[in-house]
Amino acid sequence: MDFIQVIDLMGTVAFAISGALAAYNKKLDAFGIIIIAFVTAAGGGTLRDILLGVSPVSWMTNMNLVYTILVCVLVTFIFSQKLLKLRKTLFFFDTIGIGLYTVVGLEMGITAGLHPFICVTLGCITACFGGVIRDILVNEIPVIFRKNIYATACIAGGAIYFILRKFEAPENITFIVSGISVIIIRMLAVRFKWQLPRPYKD
Amino acid sequence: MDFIQVIDLMGTVAFAISGALAAYNKKLDAFGIIIIAFVTAAGGGTLRDILLGVSPVSWMTNMNLVYTILVCVLVTFIFSQKLLKLRKTLFFFDTIGIGLYTVVGLEMGITAGLHPFICVTLGCITACFGGVIRDILVNEIPVIFRKNIYATACIAGGAIYFILRKFEAPENITFIVSGISVIIIRMLAVRFKWQLPRPYKD
Amino acid sequence: MDFIQVIDLMGTVAFAISGALAAYNKKLDAFGIIIIAFVTAAGGGTLRDILLGVSPVSWMTNMNLVYTILVCVLVTFIFSQKLLKLRKTLFFFDTIGIGLYTVVGLEMGITAGLHPFICVTLGCITACFGGVIRDILVNEIPVIFRKNIYATACIAGGAIYFILRKFEAPENITFIVSGISVIIIRMLAVRFKWQLPRPYKD
Repeated sequence: MDFIQVIDLMGTVAFAISGALAAYNKKLDAFGIIIIAFVTAAGGGTLRDILLGVSPVSWMTNMNLVYTILVCVLVTFIFSQKLLKLRKTLFFFDTIGIGLYTVVGLEMGITAGLHPFICVTLGCITACFGGVIRDILVNEIPVIFRKNIYATACIAGGAIYFILRKFEAPENITFIVSGISVIIIRMLAVRFKWQLPRPYKD
Repeated sequence: MDFIQVIDLMGTVAFAISGALAAYNKKLDAFGIIIIAFVTAAGGGTLRDILLGVSPVSWMTNMNLVYTILVCVLVTFIFSQKLLKLRKTLFFFDTIGIGLYTVVGLEMGITAGLHPFICVTLGCITACFGGVIRDILVNEIPVIFRKNIYATACIAGGAIYFILRKFEAPENITFIVSGISVIIIRMLAVRFKWQLPRPYKD
Repeated sequence: MDFIQVIDLMGTVAFAISGALAAYNKKLDAFGIIIIAFVTAAGGGTLRDILLGVSPVSWMTNMNLVYTILVCVLVTFIFSQKLLKLRKTLFFFDTIGIGLYTVVGLEMGITAGLHPFICVTLGCITACFGGVIRDILVNEIPVIFRKNIYATACIAGGAIYFILRKFEAPENITFIVSGISVIIIRMLAVRFKWQLPRPYKD
């Protein structure tokens, strides 16, 4: 199991927990919780694989991923009272998830020989799409449209990735730094209420 | 035309009628009715094919399927007064459809050499996704989130399939028994208002 | 760059502007405007490529398309005051877009050797799906369900295409005439409030 697969698995854990918590908040039944956890964790990677033409899509041939999600749901069940008391837990796992998945998507775009622009887009899709479907299914406004720093953090992390690569930083360092950048930018954005410019005269 | 294709076509008939009836209930125009019938009948198989990497997706190269849907829409038109009087007709065709499509999805997963877990998931997607899109398009809460026994019936049917296979039952018998199981479980679930456990203290 | 690519690029321009204007109307931030423009311009072609099994999907390996969209967003920004004053601008660009994309989708279906029925469906998907996603994301009722002459114009254009081909009209003429037919039918439909029949007794 190489480095990028470890990051992928950690992202899966983060998103599966964030999905299970969101479903738990909405008081879905046992099956609903599993579905939402699965879709949140596997949704972004599934769209990425479909766009790239990887088939069958990765969760179909990767039982580790499926078992990981089921274990995460179980753990969330057991610790749900504690996890929900920490009001920021859902935000925390969601943010870890987008940082890790951005890097995974970037890496797959590079492996496919695509333009840096497209690689960043793929990182962004991998990171954000699972959360968007989660929000649609539990009937919230998709997080990506509520606060656009969400996706912008992924784009910034992607830019940092290519800058580090340009200076020939070691690959694993590049992955770690750009993934952590996404997480920090998102946390700062929420903390200090950063907003993107809006081209309107009020 | 082999056995699984016959089941596929029967599922198409059931779902095309259920889609046309749902669109009819919402008083859509002629084109809207055809679209909803088509999406209901072909939606689940399309997502299954995309996830598996079957391309072009099957309805693109299978005109029988397209003609079947058009004939079903026409038949629904002609008998609409009678079909709508029977209040349970939509439920009936929908239930037949999920039973048949579960088996078709399972079979395609096995042919692709996937893990039984994934095969059951594929059966579930093939059976449920068309109905989910139908409900979104006619602006109902997706049936799968209203009563989760819907998808759970497909999963139970999938489990029965693999148990029968383990005991080396003949293939066609295995298909028929597991398909009918889905239909019976769903009917009993609605009749006796079965619900999945919810992990909450009220 | 051959003829069909020129049409594709013109369609991209039309839809990118229509998407940027729709996002502008909803007062999204800078990132939201780029996303909506991109999804409107690339959404239909992406679904078409996925259904056909073209991978990676075309915008991933076609940076011209990506740059075109970004330039269109910029131009819409600069001229937004003027463009919005013309109340029919959004309708105009949207209609040009569906005319051009119908032809592109048709052509790709023919190249893939598919049945004329399926080719027309592909033209329709290419032309309509981007606008449908745009409307869902900016929270409008999808245009295709508001006035079904929208998709019906694409189907009529597709029929005209195959009639011209039957009479062995030159290829480029066939493309131009059928694309313009879509645009004219849609404009007449809106002008004279054409509606499809509805099979109900009121």
